[in-house]
Amino acid sequence: MTDRSGALIIIGGHEDKQGDRTILSEVARRLAGGRLVIATVASHKPEGYFEAYRDALAPLGLTDLAELYLDRREDAFDPAHAAAIDAAAGVFFSGGDQQRIADMIRGTPIDAHLQQLHARGGTIAGTSAGASAMGATMIGSGASAQSHRAGDLHMSQGLGLLHGVVIDQHFAERGRIGRLLGAIARQRDTIGIGIDEDTAIIVEDGGFSVIGAGAVTIVDASDAMLPRDPGEGSSDTLSIRDVRLHLLSAGDAFAFASRAPVEPEAVAA
Amino acid sequence: MTDRSGALIIIGGHEDKQGDRTILSEVARRLAGGRLVIATVASHKPEGYFEAYRDALAPLGLTDLAELYLDRREDAFDPAHAAAIDAAAGVFFSGGDQQRIADMIRGTPIDAHLQQLHARGGTIAGTSAGASAMGATMIGSGASAQSHRAGDLHMSQGLGLLHGVVIDQHFAERGRIGRLLGAIARQRDTIGIGIDEDTAIIVEDGGFSVIGAGAVTIVDASDAMLPRDPGEGSSDTLSIRDVRLHLLSAGDAFAFASRAPVEPEAVAA
Repeated sequence: MTDRSGALIIIGGHEDKQGDRTILSEVARRLAGGRLVIATVASHKPEGYFEAYRDALAPLGLTDLAELYLDRREDAFDPAHAAAIDAAAGVFFSGGDQQRIADMIRGTPIDAHLQQLHARGGTIAGTSAGASAMGATMIGSGASAQSHRAGDLHMSQGLGLLHGVVIDQHFAERGRIGRLLGAIARQRDTIGIGIDEDTAIIVEDGGFSVIGAGAVTIVDASDAMLPRDPGEGSSDTLSIRDVRLHLLSAGDAFAFASRAPVEPEAVAA
Repeated sequence: MTDRSGALIIIGGHEDKQGDRTILSEVARRLAGGRLVIATVASHKPEGYFEAYRDALAPLGLTDLAELYLDRREDAFDPAHAAAIDAAAGVFFSGGDQQRIADMIRGTPIDAHLQQLHARGGTIAGTSAGASAMGATMIGSGASAQSHRAGDLHMSQGLGLLHGVVIDQHFAERGRIGRLLGAIARQRDTIGIGIDEDTAIIVEDGGFSVIGAGAVTIVDASDAMLPRDPGEGSSDTLSIRDVRLHLLSAGDAFAFASRAPVEPEAVAA
């Protein structure tokens, strides 16, 4: 990341839309009156998603909204969509299936214009599937609420707005540490970031800070050892030693270069 | 533990009772034809528990069974119960509420005779609530499937058959890493052991080995740091840095003295 890149606001799903709206308020603050594109691409049935965000964001002063939906990948080549992104101050990816985001957008003009928006300081936010899709590598699908078996996990390529990490969401609520450990066991230099519901990380300046109600779990396997290396399709339960784990909550911060929690001042807002 | 102490077989709940019965077979092997007392004390409604174990254990050659149930704590002072434990080669605690095991047994003659049985080489097994009750300290109750808030966790005293650890069960299935991190955050020299369903640790000779289908999660906060120390009743989400995590599965072993995974030969069967 360069200093000119905009912030990424990566949300673990179910961000509060009716109460104090801590996370959506941060999105509104970052947009500073500019237009926000709500990208509902992750969903196979996006009806009602845009309206829910419109209603939640209006009382926060964020009223200049546009929706981006794609029925099929070919639509991503329509110049009108690229122009809509060029006219925006930010894009917000709602939930659904992260694989649909990647399938519809990766390698299309929308992808390129999104990267350009981010590079010139635009804010890119994503919740649930929209959070998973931020990474260069993502968990396409995988079992929750069980310890990891290699055959249960499907890794794929995300939008690549953030490199060197794999992001998971609805993290504590759906018992997903097993699959996140499985993901970093395959790529041990990748930092695993598990984000709880109604919780977000704000990525900028080489690190992130945490806001919201829950926790962010960091798992770092860079010094870890696998006594047995299960094949990709293995049904054996994972075994991995010496993973470093941090649990961060609102007010905490993390620096990517040192792979360590830092004081919040080190990741300037 | 001395070399003469018997094994502890600590099971994460839902051990297989109809298929290959890996864990119950190990219980039967350890009993070597001796009598097993099935202690259904954890349950408020123990009907059917004894019969389920009788049916599951009979094909494994373990047929010399007795049931121990206590309607109230006063019953634990009946000499007949102590005599039943003295006549047994092992005791198996079934599931329910670990607090009920502690409330009925701690400090009674049953407690003393159980410790004597263990000290002279008897096998003590426990599943689910019966697993949690093994430790000197236990999670009496706490929220699952969310990150830890101190106010959600109630710690209490268990039977003390194993010191220096806190045990949790149904671990991956119920998303319990949050509460286990909460428990070790309060007592950072205590090793947290989270055992999945149909998975067990066999404790003997200063360490344990793993059997069964799932994983055993070890969390070690001995080098961890808490940036903020939430009070006992706090509703703040926990923040903790530098926890060491190991995920062990069948064939792995762990030594308490080094707080580290070891080759299985180091924890002799």
